[in-house]
Amino acid sequence: MTTLRDIGEDALIARLIALVPRDPDPAAGPGDDCAVVDPGPSSSTVQLLKTDCMVGGVHFLPDTPARSVGWKSIARVVSDFAAMGGLPARFLVTVALPLETPLSWVEELYRGIGDCLETFGAVLVGGETSSVPPGSSAVISIAATGSATREHLVLRSTAAPGQTLLVTGFLGGSLAGKHLNFTPRIKEANWLVSHFKPQAMMDLSDGLAKDLPRLAAASGCGFTLDRAALPLSPGSTPEQALGDGEDFELLLALEPGRVPGLLRAWSAQFPELPLTAIGCLVKEGAGEILTGGWDHFAAVR
Amino acid sequence: MTTLRDIGEDALIARLIALVPRDPDPAAGPGDDCAVVDPGPSSSTVQLLKTDCMVGGVHFLPDTPARSVGWKSIARVVSDFAAMGGLPARFLVTVALPLETPLSWVEELYRGIGDCLETFGAVLVGGETSSVPPGSSAVISIAATGSATREHLVLRSTAAPGQTLLVTGFLGGSLAGKHLNFTPRIKEANWLVSHFKPQAMMDLSDGLAKDLPRLAAASGCGFTLDRAALPLSPGSTPEQALGDGEDFELLLALEPGRVPGLLRAWSAQFPELPLTAIGCLVKEGAGEILTGGWDHFAAVR
Repeated sequence: MTTLRDIGEDALIARLIALVPRDPDPAAGPGDDCAVVDPGPSSSTVQLLKTDCMVGGVHFLPDTPARSVGWKSIARVVSDFAAMGGLPARFLVTVALPLETPLSWVEELYRGIGDCLETFGAVLVGGETSSVPPGSSAVISIAATGSATREHLVLRSTAAPGQTLLVTGFLGGSLAGKHLNFTPRIKEANWLVSHFKPQAMMDLSDGLAKDLPRLAAASGCGFTLDRAALPLSPGSTPEQALGDGEDFELLLALEPGRVPGLLRAWSAQFPELPLTAIGCLVKEGAGEILTGGWDHFAAVR
Repeated sequence: MTTLRDIGEDALIARLIALVPRDPDPAAGPGDDCAVVDPGPSSSTVQLLKTDCMVGGVHFLPDTPARSVGWKSIARVVSDFAAMGGLPARFLVTVALPLETPLSWVEELYRGIGDCLETFGAVLVGGETSSVPPGSSAVISIAATGSATREHLVLRSTAAPGQTLLVTGFLGGSLAGKHLNFTPRIKEANWLVSHFKPQAMMDLSDGLAKDLPRLAAASGCGFTLDRAALPLSPGSTPEQALGDGEDFELLLALEPGRVPGLLRAWSAQFPELPLTAIGCLVKEGAGEILTGGWDHFAAVR
């Protein structure tokens, strides 16, 4: 009998979405960081929809401070709005928790949720609570709406061969703590789409080794990667930079002629955060193959 | 140490939402069946947002057909859009599942999700998948957008003393099967708001004993209930009609002078589905007190 252990996350999703009615509008996902809802040409903005979840024992541990769990649950979603060149707006929080959960833990969770919503100008508008049977892990599921102006919206499927690949920040070593207290790149993404709108963009949640092939495939491209150029987090190896996941940095594709200007302007605008060219897109079928990164349904990472 | 076992679901939610930034627009929930987002006076419709979840061992059992689980997960949310006088539109489905889950089970789940989306003219636009640790229950979390015309939108907080309380269908006995294969009252609700718009409406998900006090409290009312009038499902007692939960029928409040006309028109329109007057709203602090119904965090039902 085939189980989820035997099939990768991307293959599973492809099988499942074939079983349900989908939006006829092809800009509306599934497949990008957020689903895009276009209210029609009279509107200068599009709506973004996103859902995400965190599971005890997978995304956080029993000794993880609840306030950090709350921050992370919202920040992961804010990072997806950043990746589209958008802003977060309204959140719905669903928690499924064991009856034995201390009330103080749940209150700290919501304080962390509140910290992150307030930092990024978003609000809570609803949610749901449920118990889980004894011994089951806690699940925190976040749904959110956001928006992007039509001219600033960036997809991951619109890059082309020859374009340069860049990443913000440092990669690898997320488990040392960065995965809990990271700052979503909303400020940087919104500056980018206003000044040097990328040809494609996504956030790095499952590791470059998993996410770069996704961006390339969505754009109908292959890719080459300059491993020596990878901006490594202190103490991280190139393998960790590729495979640890939960970097929550931006990966973008830009026409090569625009890269020098972007790098100059970026270092003036964000002197403390590197922006690094790490490779380029090539024709589909050419380039290299990356394996690894985080897969929720892989038996071995 | 206080745990979730020691505090009711409604009290928990009240404590939690005080910890996070909320929408300044008071029509925007939390507290009603859906959150309401008003895009401004130039729009003739408002957007509805809803999230819900189903947990293995709580909302469905290991031997529940996966296709029924999928249907129910969507139908529960469609019922909330009905309760607001609206229609469902776009869905995001998040599943957190054990690695040992058979692929065929997940595919049947999505077929059931697809059945219900198609029946009610809605589409899937995104989602998320995660594993849960060994031994943990499956969690299926649904987020959805919908809409209601401004003139048809019904809240649960807008009833007043003296109004008649009515319910659709039969109450009680959901565990005999109705909780899995019910039809959300979207057709009936949309007819109601067009022809006899109720002063307030909600769907009955946790049992009349839990939900009627919620509608009354949201409207600043008390209530009296005519137990002898309760429309009992075959084989159900009045206690079961009050407490079983998962009826997914509509509870509405209507000015008493409009009730005879509604009942005549209703029986012509929906000859197979009863609509029954079961009591009335009274002044806050007067009337009776109901206890029971489904509470996710109560140690004993």
